[in-house]
Amino acid sequence: VSRIARAPRAYLVCVGSELLAGQVNTHQAWLSVRLRRAGFDVAGESSLPDSVSEIKAAMRRALGAADAVIVCGGLGPTFDDLTREAAAAALGRGIRFVPGLWRTIRARFARYHVAVPEQNKRQAEVIEGAEVLANDNGSAPGQRLEFRGADGRARSLILLPGPYAEMAPIFRRVLPRLADRHARGAGAASFTLRLVGVPESVADERLDAVRARFPDASFTILASGGEVSFHATVRAATRAAARKQSAALRAAALKAVGRWCYGEGDATLESTVGLRLKKKRLTLAVAESCTGGLLGGRLTSVPGSSAWFRGGVIAYDNSVKSKLLGVSAALLKKRGAVSQECAEAMARGARKAAGADLGVAITGIAGPDGGTKEKPVGLVHLAVSGPGRALRARRLDIHGPRESVRARAAGAALALLKEAVDDPS
Amino acid sequence: VSRIARAPRAYLVCVGSELLAGQVNTHQAWLSVRLRRAGFDVAGESSLPDSVSEIKAAMRRALGAADAVIVCGGLGPTFDDLTREAAAAALGRGIRFVPGLWRTIRARFARYHVAVPEQNKRQAEVIEGAEVLANDNGSAPGQRLEFRGADGRARSLILLPGPYAEMAPIFRRVLPRLADRHARGAGAASFTLRLVGVPESVADERLDAVRARFPDASFTILASGGEVSFHATVRAATRAAARKQSAALRAAALKAVGRWCYGEGDATLESTVGLRLKKKRLTLAVAESCTGGLLGGRLTSVPGSSAWFRGGVIAYDNSVKSKLLGVSAALLKKRGAVSQECAEAMARGARKAAGADLGVAITGIAGPDGGTKEKPVGLVHLAVSGPGRALRARRLDIHGPRESVRARAAGAALALLKEAVDDPS
Repeated sequence: VSRIARAPRAYLVCVGSELLAGQVNTHQAWLSVRLRRAGFDVAGESSLPDSVSEIKAAMRRALGAADAVIVCGGLGPTFDDLTREAAAAALGRGIRFVPGLWRTIRARFARYHVAVPEQNKRQAEVIEGAEVLANDNGSAPGQRLEFRGADGRARSLILLPGPYAEMAPIFRRVLPRLADRHARGAGAASFTLRLVGVPESVADERLDAVRARFPDASFTILASGGEVSFHATVRAATRAAARKQSAALRAAALKAVGRWCYGEGDATLESTVGLRLKKKRLTLAVAESCTGGLLGGRLTSVPGSSAWFRGGVIAYDNSVKSKLLGVSAALLKKRGAVSQECAEAMARGARKAAGADLGVAITGIAGPDGGTKEKPVGLVHLAVSGPGRALRARRLDIHGPRESVRARAAGAALALLKEAVDDPS
Repeated sequence: VSRIARAPRAYLVCVGSELLAGQVNTHQAWLSVRLRRAGFDVAGESSLPDSVSEIKAAMRRALGAADAVIVCGGLGPTFDDLTREAAAAALGRGIRFVPGLWRTIRARFARYHVAVPEQNKRQAEVIEGAEVLANDNGSAPGQRLEFRGADGRARSLILLPGPYAEMAPIFRRVLPRLADRHARGAGAASFTLRLVGVPESVADERLDAVRARFPDASFTILASGGEVSFHATVRAATRAAARKQSAALRAAALKAVGRWCYGEGDATLESTVGLRLKKKRLTLAVAESCTGGLLGGRLTSVPGSSAWFRGGVIAYDNSVKSKLLGVSAALLKKRGAVSQECAEAMARGARKAAGADLGVAITGIAGPDGGTKEKPVGLVHLAVSGPGRALRARRLDIHGPRESVRARAAGAALALLKEAVDDPS
């Protein structure tokens, strides 16, 4: 029996007063996902104001609780960028000015024909013993410190710049080395299944038996916007053993929930739909009423979507449904704009208007006003139309505020579209 | 001279393993903004896994550093909902079962004709001395504890359920009482200006002198998606004095940056545009190429937008630009789809196609592919067309990834639209 190593722990420290003043912290989720995939447990996160004493105290606490501590932010050139000083104080080390680094920073500014402010000299200051992590997208380099804690265990402290475009590439480069250092003598393997069309509770229940069979793995289920993602990480004595177990776990999970699985890893519903349309050489058009463009916005978030997405009509007003999509006034009068019949007519109309193979339509009542007893807020009708394909329609009854109704309607339309593309019968 | 009270401090504790596994923590930003507006300094935030010992330790630390500690999450009925136990342990208090609360929870389930799982009994458990905060949107009530710390100062510990729809109404109700308790003998007043069309650094520089004149106020500048928001909180010995100072500060700030200010408080660019269109009884249509529906999505996020928004065309493919918007093949050939001329033709076409007073158009190269030397990734042309209004056009050169180009293009189109509505000359 192979000895399973304890999962290495990571802790996140996010520095910047803006995180306590209304700016959403997206680094936390981004870093957590990648650390987990690399085999780390993420033990906690702290957001701190720009204060040396608080940053220092948080780093010390984090280094006591975790093997690897990732700090984002506070490496800029201004007076309130204090992460370097705090890290040096937390470790009891000095800071030195590195002339070579200062030359690199000046060269960077010269490329953009900008004079270097004298205060940027601070960005050439490096903590004693730190490795400099080059920043190709900004002037603040990252820093990496390796040492042993009082308990003799290996520790890493990684300092990263705050802006996403600078932080992400540096973190991607340093992560494999971080995992190697803290997962020595053991291996990790992981996967993520992306599900749609199943409630979180049902997926959870079906996966219960799978989890019981793999007690050494760690699992997460996340539900968001009508989708569910299931992540598993396996740790074993060797990387090969971890991979083998992960493959067995993945097969068991797919047996339990595979019928709802549309993709793995970083796949999104829109990128999956796009790939399948491209493969089948089909083009798509949208007709959106209550979502007002959200579906088109998601589809065109996929790079290269012009290969399969033609465009469509935002038919918010009924006159637009009639004029641009050919929905008849009689149908609107008899069935109303929020009806299966109208959704079907809109899907056909979008296909025709934009000259596409497939048309997808959304019409519903997003609220807060406009609901009636027969057609309450949250009622949404979807339809997909295509040549050689049966017309598909779906009715949704969504509970929640306006933003949830709209987001879920767009997600459900993508799911219906995927079904129609996969199974033309 | 009036004595200025120290600003009361708040600390956020967000409980839930999902926050360390990829779920974005949006509560932190939402609560921070509201606490700051109520006169609190937000001293820090921690995200924790579902562990009694860690939640307890974080609560103790937070109560040592702050006057009011807000805890979100971990009040559900399942085994990993541990906030109640952790709070009781942190304060050294017991937990009691409240039969009346259990009746309320059962009545709630009965309304939805659902049997109450026995495990939900845990949600009727209340920490000794706690006030129950009713939850109209779920079964987990909040709890509010008031006591004095070892230093004799007043402390509050507020426990809130995790889901936004349940957390937000409870927090809104409890916030004024929280502010009253911790800001005794002093008053706070605050305002937020929303700016567009000005770089953050320029706004910052212009506001420097204003900040220097009000040394007792606290300030935040946030830039996001091409917009800048400026928030100020003034504290004084009385509420009346705070209001008076805040009004003087606001007047000074408006003098400095008022020309870019489109609204205050919770106003968004889309809600502001909508209000002005409604007031002038004008209707709007969109024509979107590279944004693919993002602009329509933002406009229709405004409740009641059907009063002024007609819809429009997502003209991703050039054939759709021609067919639905009437952009001539000659123009597309001569100038290209990403040109001022095409944007203007699209804006006119949208207005006509949707029967609206005003048309707004976006065409650009979002990347990562499709750029050329003459028309690089990030080049965007906007236009607004309307009867009795000069045609307005604007060229943007946006640096950043695909998502930034698209988001900024949509924001800039809203700004151009606002100009056109305000000033028809």
